[in-house]
Amino acid sequence: MTNGYFLEDLTTGMSASYGKTITDADIVLFAGVSGDTNPVHLDQEFAAKTPFKTRIAHGMLSASFISTVIGTKLPGPGAIYMSQNLRFKAPVKIGDTVQTTCTITEIIAEKRRIVLSTICKVGDTVVIEGDALIMVPSRGK
Amino acid sequence: MTNGYFLEDLTTGMSASYGKTITDADIVLFAGVSGDTNPVHLDQEFAAKTPFKTRIAHGMLSASFISTVIGTKLPGPGAIYMSQNLRFKAPVKIGDTVQTTCTITEIIAEKRRIVLSTICKVGDTVVIEGDALIMVPSRGK
Amino acid sequence: MTNGYFLEDLTTGMSASYGKTITDADIVLFAGVSGDTNPVHLDQEFAAKTPFKTRIAHGMLSASFISTVIGTKLPGPGAIYMSQNLRFKAPVKIGDTVQTTCTITEIIAEKRRIVLSTICKVGDTVVIEGDALIMVPSRGK
Amino acid sequence: MTNGYFLEDLTTGMSASYGKTITDADIVLFAGVSGDTNPVHLDQEFAAKTPFKTRIAHGMLSASFISTVIGTKLPGPGAIYMSQNLRFKAPVKIGDTVQTTCTITEIIAEKRRIVLSTICKVGDTVVIEGDALIMVPSRGK
Repeated sequence: MTNGYFLEDLTTGMSASYGKTITDADIVLFAGVSGDTNPVHLDQEFAAKTPFKTRIAHGMLSASFISTVIGTKLPGPGAIYMSQNLRFKAPVKIGDTVQTTCTITEIIAEKRRIVLSTICKVGDTVVIEGDALIMVPSRGK
Repeated sequence: MTNGYFLEDLTTGMSASYGKTITDADIVLFAGVSGDTNPVHLDQEFAAKTPFKTRIAHGMLSASFISTVIGTKLPGPGAIYMSQNLRFKAPVKIGDTVQTTCTITEIIAEKRRIVLSTICKVGDTVVIEGDALIMVPSRGK
Repeated sequence: MTNGYFLEDLTTGMSASYGKTITDADIVLFAGVSGDTNPVHLDQEFAAKTPFKTRIAHGMLSASFISTVIGTKLPGPGAIYMSQNLRFKAPVKIGDTVQTTCTITEIIAEKRRIVLSTICKVGDTVVIEGDALIMVPSRGK
Repeated sequence: MTNGYFLEDLTTGMSASYGKTITDADIVLFAGVSGDTNPVHLDQEFAAKTPFKTRIAHGMLSASFISTVIGTKLPGPGAIYMSQNLRFKAPVKIGDTVQTTCTITEIIAEKRRIVLSTICKVGDTVVIEGDALIMVPSRGK
């Protein structure tokens, strides 16, 4: 059974990342699964009249990369997502590569929980920032 | 140009919903666009050994339905997502229908922002709860 | 239960629109679900020798936007599609934004049916024109 | 260059078919490319309260199979779609296999056009019926 880190293996400052280039295919597939057909994502003529000037990716698509880091890398499979907050700071355009980095900022050992800072960037621009609270399996369990 | 509600059209207590039945196709497509290949979503043998006993949907898939309500219904196109917090309360299984309801709880007129409570339920069980902060276009702008 | 308009809420001249920019992802996904692998959509070398000179979108992809307006906006959920006719007037190329507008032209109250003119345009060019016949739920029912 | 039939190769009564089993993946992908998120396709709880009792496929998804027969088989690549009418007679459910058959009913040689009857069936039930008008390349051209 493929497992992620146990609580005892984790220390503050540990970090993991996931990079993803946003394509038109991501946008149309995300629209299908989410049902979010907001024209700012799908209609270039509409988007051109918004402050963004062009079609942008769904914010929750970039947010999903945080779950990717947590669920596949740090701490990885076996962890349970408790909560997440998200501040959307800047738009992501088609063709942008989103680099998502999660870093352990706090370990609450008695509750088997950790806090991670969760940052999505495009180049040097932060597009999402927030924190995740995760329950992690313990070897002692 | 299809637009959503303007700030002047909104009052606290207004509410909108989106319902979506979760299928295997949603899981695999969400895995594809997000890169979140956590086995709890994709590997029944792994999932059977977790507290969930079976494969579950990505939490961020259900969270994306909040964006669907906000971006297509209330307030709809033209709104800008500022922030979201998410508390994951219970798992969503394949075949579950997630009903997502967003309700305006506060209008901060001078900043053209609104707060919505954002709740995802499967039957009577809350699976996600949180709040969204949204910037809304004003007619007076 | 999210419902669309009832028959009693509708008048001739009411109209709704949906805009969608056509991307390569739409073409390949539509080819996948429909099975329509006509090379005029998928093979640039074939398409270059046709009167269109380049790959074009499936006509039925643009036609599907008519269903989008009817099923999500006017009259929206609860309506039943009875019939549609489609005249394909001009090709749609990748990158074009298709604006689809449906306008109620007739209300047949005793049969709870409405007729809509259904027009898809790219800029000022009509690409599809036709009419839809829709059965609409009645409050009195 | 892969080409379909020329006008001179066609006679009335010629026929071709395409069969496709409808899956949840088709529904969610069609929702994404079309933007048609009508809950009768995506929300089992909504659909259960409609006359259909369960989620149904988009009518235009079945209609797209007509284009598949015409664009890939009869007359195949090189043909140009002029018009189509569609009468939606019965719903298509997930798991149903749609058999679509197009049969040449008329050849209008001087205009290089043909008329086909276009029928989609699930078992013995006609789900869509209509006619297509197609322009076909001529060897003499």
